[in-house]
Amino acid sequence: MHVTIVHVWVKPDRIQDFIEATQLNHEGSLGEPGNRRFDVLQDANDPAKFVLYEAFEDEEDAAGHKLTEHYKLWRDTVAEMMAKPREGVPHRALYPSN
Amino acid sequence: MHVTIVHVWVKPDRIQDFIEATQLNHEGSLGEPGNRRFDVLQDANDPAKFVLYEAFEDEEDAAGHKLTEHYKLWRDTVAEMMAKPREGVPHRALYPSN
Repeated sequence: MHVTIVHVWVKPDRIQDFIEATQLNHEGSLGEPGNRRFDVLQDANDPAKFVLYEAFEDEEDAAGHKLTEHYKLWRDTVAEMMAKPREGVPHRALYPSN
Repeated sequence: MHVTIVHVWVKPDRIQDFIEATQLNHEGSLGEPGNRRFDVLQDANDPAKFVLYEAFEDEEDAAGHKLTEHYKLWRDTVAEMMAKPREGVPHRALYPSN
């Protein structure tokens, strides 16, 4: 399983707009080939800090996410909501091992 | 769903020992009340950097994790393997919403 942890910093006055746009990306992503998880998290101590936890069977499926229409719509919609650039950190899942 | 993202920095010569100890913690944690995920990740660009992605139904179940025997065994076993103190960041999952 390949996991990208994406750190997102949102402008404080756009938090609700970001959540609504990201719900659509979450729902679309669950239907992608090889998707295992697409969790949308809000930092318990900083409501403007979010994490997208994107898990796919393999790197190819993870790369495919960025070719989808729901991803491109999300990317373009949230662009003006970012307080600073996102940071995506790729990981290899050791467990679960399948 | 309550998610703790735990950042772990391991001494380079203890990476395999850490992975073995953490497999046991992963397996034990999946059987805990309210556990939803317990993913063990290795940074794709830094093999000594790990993430534990610990998701439970609620905060009470998350707190219960630290009372288990497998957690205490893991904590004591890996103590000498740490390159620096772990950092756990609590999150509220927005999606999935159940």
